[in-house]
Amino acid sequence: MGKRVSIVGATGYTGGELLRYLVRHPEVTVARVTSETFSGAPIHDIHKFLKGRLGLVCEKLNVNALAADSDLVFVCLPHGAAARTVASLLKKNTRVIDLSADFRLKDAAVYKRWYGAHPLTPLLKESVFGLPERYRDEIRNAPLVANPGCYATATILAGLPLMAGKLLARGPIIVDAKSGVSGAGKKVESRYLFCEANESIQAYALRGHRHQPEIEQEWSNAAGRDLTGSHPLTLVPHLTPMTRGILATLYAPLAKKISVEDLRDRFVQYYAREPFVTVLGAFESPETKAVSHTNHCQIGVALDSSGRQAIVISALDNLVKGASGQAIQNMNLMLGFDETKGLL
Amino acid sequence: MGKRVSIVGATGYTGGELLRYLVRHPEVTVARVTSETFSGAPIHDIHKFLKGRLGLVCEKLNVNALAADSDLVFVCLPHGAAARTVASLLKKNTRVIDLSADFRLKDAAVYKRWYGAHPLTPLLKESVFGLPERYRDEIRNAPLVANPGCYATATILAGLPLMAGKLLARGPIIVDAKSGVSGAGKKVESRYLFCEANESIQAYALRGHRHQPEIEQEWSNAAGRDLTGSHPLTLVPHLTPMTRGILATLYAPLAKKISVEDLRDRFVQYYAREPFVTVLGAFESPETKAVSHTNHCQIGVALDSSGRQAIVISALDNLVKGASGQAIQNMNLMLGFDETKGLL
Amino acid sequence: MGKRVSIVGATGYTGGELLRYLVRHPEVTVARVTSETFSGAPIHDIHKFLKGRLGLVCEKLNVNALAADSDLVFVCLPHGAAARTVASLLKKNTRVIDLSADFRLKDAAVYKRWYGAHPLTPLLKESVFGLPERYRDEIRNAPLVANPGCYATATILAGLPLMAGKLLARGPIIVDAKSGVSGAGKKVESRYLFCEANESIQAYALRGHRHQPEIEQEWSNAAGRDLTGSHPLTLVPHLTPMTRGILATLYAPLAKKISVEDLRDRFVQYYAREPFVTVLGAFESPETKAVSHTNHCQIGVALDSSGRQAIVISALDNLVKGASGQAIQNMNLMLGFDETKGLL
Amino acid sequence: MGKRVSIVGATGYTGGELLRYLVRHPEVTVARVTSETFSGAPIHDIHKFLKGRLGLVCEKLNVNALAADSDLVFVCLPHGAAARTVASLLKKNTRVIDLSADFRLKDAAVYKRWYGAHPLTPLLKESVFGLPERYRDEIRNAPLVANPGCYATATILAGLPLMAGKLLARGPIIVDAKSGVSGAGKKVESRYLFCEANESIQAYALRGHRHQPEIEQEWSNAAGRDLTGSHPLTLVPHLTPMTRGILATLYAPLAKKISVEDLRDRFVQYYAREPFVTVLGAFESPETKAVSHTNHCQIGVALDSSGRQAIVISALDNLVKGASGQAIQNMNLMLGFDETKGLL
Repeated sequence: MGKRVSIVGATGYTGGELLRYLVRHPEVTVARVTSETFSGAPIHDIHKFLKGRLGLVCEKLNVNALAADSDLVFVCLPHGAAARTVASLLKKNTRVIDLSADFRLKDAAVYKRWYGAHPLTPLLKESVFGLPERYRDEIRNAPLVANPGCYATATILAGLPLMAGKLLARGPIIVDAKSGVSGAGKKVESRYLFCEANESIQAYALRGHRHQPEIEQEWSNAAGRDLTGSHPLTLVPHLTPMTRGILATLYAPLAKKISVEDLRDRFVQYYAREPFVTVLGAFESPETKAVSHTNHCQIGVALDSSGRQAIVISALDNLVKGASGQAIQNMNLMLGFDETKGLL
Repeated sequence: MGKRVSIVGATGYTGGELLRYLVRHPEVTVARVTSETFSGAPIHDIHKFLKGRLGLVCEKLNVNALAADSDLVFVCLPHGAAARTVASLLKKNTRVIDLSADFRLKDAAVYKRWYGAHPLTPLLKESVFGLPERYRDEIRNAPLVANPGCYATATILAGLPLMAGKLLARGPIIVDAKSGVSGAGKKVESRYLFCEANESIQAYALRGHRHQPEIEQEWSNAAGRDLTGSHPLTLVPHLTPMTRGILATLYAPLAKKISVEDLRDRFVQYYAREPFVTVLGAFESPETKAVSHTNHCQIGVALDSSGRQAIVISALDNLVKGASGQAIQNMNLMLGFDETKGLL
Repeated sequence: MGKRVSIVGATGYTGGELLRYLVRHPEVTVARVTSETFSGAPIHDIHKFLKGRLGLVCEKLNVNALAADSDLVFVCLPHGAAARTVASLLKKNTRVIDLSADFRLKDAAVYKRWYGAHPLTPLLKESVFGLPERYRDEIRNAPLVANPGCYATATILAGLPLMAGKLLARGPIIVDAKSGVSGAGKKVESRYLFCEANESIQAYALRGHRHQPEIEQEWSNAAGRDLTGSHPLTLVPHLTPMTRGILATLYAPLAKKISVEDLRDRFVQYYAREPFVTVLGAFESPETKAVSHTNHCQIGVALDSSGRQAIVISALDNLVKGASGQAIQNMNLMLGFDETKGLL
Repeated sequence: MGKRVSIVGATGYTGGELLRYLVRHPEVTVARVTSETFSGAPIHDIHKFLKGRLGLVCEKLNVNALAADSDLVFVCLPHGAAARTVASLLKKNTRVIDLSADFRLKDAAVYKRWYGAHPLTPLLKESVFGLPERYRDEIRNAPLVANPGCYATATILAGLPLMAGKLLARGPIIVDAKSGVSGAGKKVESRYLFCEANESIQAYALRGHRHQPEIEQEWSNAAGRDLTGSHPLTLVPHLTPMTRGILATLYAPLAKKISVEDLRDRFVQYYAREPFVTVLGAFESPETKAVSHTNHCQIGVALDSSGRQAIVISALDNLVKGASGQAIQNMNLMLGFDETKGLL
């Protein structure tokens, strides 16, 4: 008998993408989907690809009902709003994958600086950061997994092999990231209109983007020491005219000369056993199209002409490996399925 | 009586964009258009927006005919191929705006490193780099103007106010540039197909892009000294799913703390009298859409959270201020018209 | 000394496109721009291409101020809302080009069926339908010009030469029209989000589109009799993933065999003296890209394999010949300028 | 033990899409992939989403090797070229799904009119038209299945319930079809470049499109009589700026008044047991995005305002239900798997 899962806040893009994978997953059934705005509406009226494929109707949030019927619940609520629902579900002994930012940061002070006061700081310790490439074993048994942000996933994966080694010189790390418009979620705002976003690129969040502390936290964890002083991160996200995809281009100063082949080998070895990370050839750039609608992250490694800057480029689908696909990967780990089930 | 101008290699995107501005320019008439591939075909069969508006037929290149009928000739040939045609026209005392790379670099050794041996090194001294914001007076009387590359224009303009002052610390300057597909010209190659380029972003030219030496040359000229040692440039271009537009994001280490308002003021003052450069508010990013189909460059200025990195973002239309519009601006200067004629 | 014009409701797409043409028009100055939502904001904060080019600030609507300072006012308000403002301006002897639907239909009963009761039926008689290809002379002296809808312009122009002759058999005329997203205006609704509209095509308004009665009115006028019984029109609009452009494909049953060349000749002769309508070769389809950012309409003529159906395809830019460019063309006529001034 | 399948001509878009489904199909393994142009190259260098997922190398075509190792072969060659390879495989008792047009038309004279003389007319009788909604049982045992064209699938499915009943009046049926650019295959031609196809719509094949006789054949088969005289089909395809998707809008004259609900019921009943066809609500248009990357066809049914024209709109992904997904569906039937295996 399969497992039963539910989605809180199922009508946004991450909810839709979860359903895309869940309806074809051989081991799980979707029990309930909730939406405050669209309660009473068939979920296929919002996600039209579900027509003829899933008959569920959106319900208002009811923690008791969810807990009774679900082995695991995906929470797709805005940050701040997610925390209390997550806590209520955990109290009912229901496992949760939270796609908001509420449980990603371990330090309540850092959370406060970027998001305001955290509503439930004690829970921060219990959650596991949902990046299987780092925390596979912890995820298996976690009651609460905090699914990482899309920019964070792309950037952390691009940098991990650098941080783990002793490759970098002191100095700034620049990450110039380009995202498709779905990264903003289904916000009905003027700047996300087709006629505004099409045929246009712009930078945004120039005063700082909220995924930055996730990256700093995880790179520092991998290095075993706080890197924010010696390797300050400058992260500039850009809005680009495509629906899906993130390309993150990372520039980092090298401590000493290294050949591009040696640099690439570090990445190949680091990710040798990972089912969803592929390292391309030296000087080969990934393309977001190649990972679109997949849970894969492709990484390219290069050196600038002086040999003093490493250039690492990662590409993933922000809605899949950057959000819902990674959540399915985490679900597979938590429920004891093969990690790649339903994702290949 | 107006002036007469001609275009050599009129069937590509820069040729088409020149014609878009020339057919509505009040002071000039298009005398001849040449194409080896499409000779005999009406130019409006290639550039369909000209239907009912321009009746010229493409001719094979004939320098005598061009010289006899033209006050000025735009040369839109590939690098290497352009040099000899330019030389022949100059010998006939016909003034030339060359849109290729053949006369942009002053140092034949640098040219050789990026393009191979230069066919006509003596002419390198005679050409003027066609960036009016730097060489307005020289352009007016030049027999030969070398129109800058699209990435070069966007990047040089973003960096000039930094190079002119004493703002920067030693250290690498990173330029992460994003271009629409028309930047590649009308090359019929697989990677420029709609289905390959749409919904995809990738980096390219990771071993070095040919516009880099133009930028180094012009920034060093502005600084009055060679910057390539103290401020090595890493330029990474990206192919993005839009037809037109370049957004260049420049990251440069600052020598000392400066407020973003002060930094922005340097830019405002530097470009105060420029008709085609606009500096936005602090922390405001330009959007390529806002400059699409215009000859304007918009520039945004920001600081990263540490205050140690300047972030400068420039946006222009690669086919206009990045190529043909700038060529019209140069033509206006060369032929004694108001610099903005036909461009506003 | 030039003329002064103002725009009521200047912050939408038609307002922006009017400004794109007006700031470079050699004979007019923009006096005032109004917006209820953005009053107090510089207009270049809404239309960012105006940065460094136009310093006007949005004002709340004040008919006295507009009338005092303007030779002509463009009204870009929603239907229903436009009528009273138009009437107030006319009372002050200020000429008006109304871009809403309020004065396009001559028959108040038809208006009522599609839009609800008309607020000012007496004015319907005074307005002139702003299609210069039909009403050039009336437009010159009109106090009020009703600028046609975008689908209406594309469809009427595609059909006029058929209606004027005796070419058609009794039977349905099908118009399958495809529009870019800007045809919906700057409505901040979910279905116009980039992620919803990109990579998608759908039909809409399947119960009837409001531009249909404009087309029926004008075709009947051209034929000199009511065509709605003998040649019922089926108009199905489609939303397509591009910012600008309309392609209307018209299918009409022919009364008798005619060669495609003869059919095309009817179109060539009908539009022989029109500066903004171009008839392509037989069996040649127009492309919306070729007319993008121009005031031109390109028309292709074909026959189906049986020779019994005429296929006529028209392309225009919905924001230019389909709205604001046509309004400038009407303004040129009304103010005594060359009809093409500022539009070529 | 699973089955083994191979692909002849695996480097185009249909080959890539077959591989997208085959690598995750639980019952089959890909044995061989061939390409004359890219023989020797890893298939993941052409289809980059396969990096880290499939290690096969492209081989030159070798019928013996294919026959020895494959239970079934997909042939993705151009029409004309496909026929002989298909015949050779059949001779080796290897079952074939041919994605070309070579075996779709039963009448060699009709084939000749559209494609030129058929190289192997005797085989026309043996092939089964690969539309499971019509020929499910025949497909199960067929040695050769001719996979339908993309426009043909969309149009046939939209029309079948009309042809099967007695709903239509004599008179023309208009099909105005809109396709994404991948419908043209991976042809490296100027008009399929991003900068040509983006932001543009045009009609093409105005002298007749090759999918027309497939539609006429299958509608006539469904009606039990030749419909080409009484219901002549006018099919006009349009190229639209998206990668994937077809929307076909069908206009057909009705024999008598019928309510839209009754008309829709005919469709609902006709497709009641079909896993991949969904009928939407009355007056609801399908969207190509809703079926993108799925094997589903969604159909909307409407009436024009006169009630005399049926409007039927079908949407599918041209690379999936319009090509490779349908081929997988046929493979499932031929190899005895559940028809939906690997497709949901």
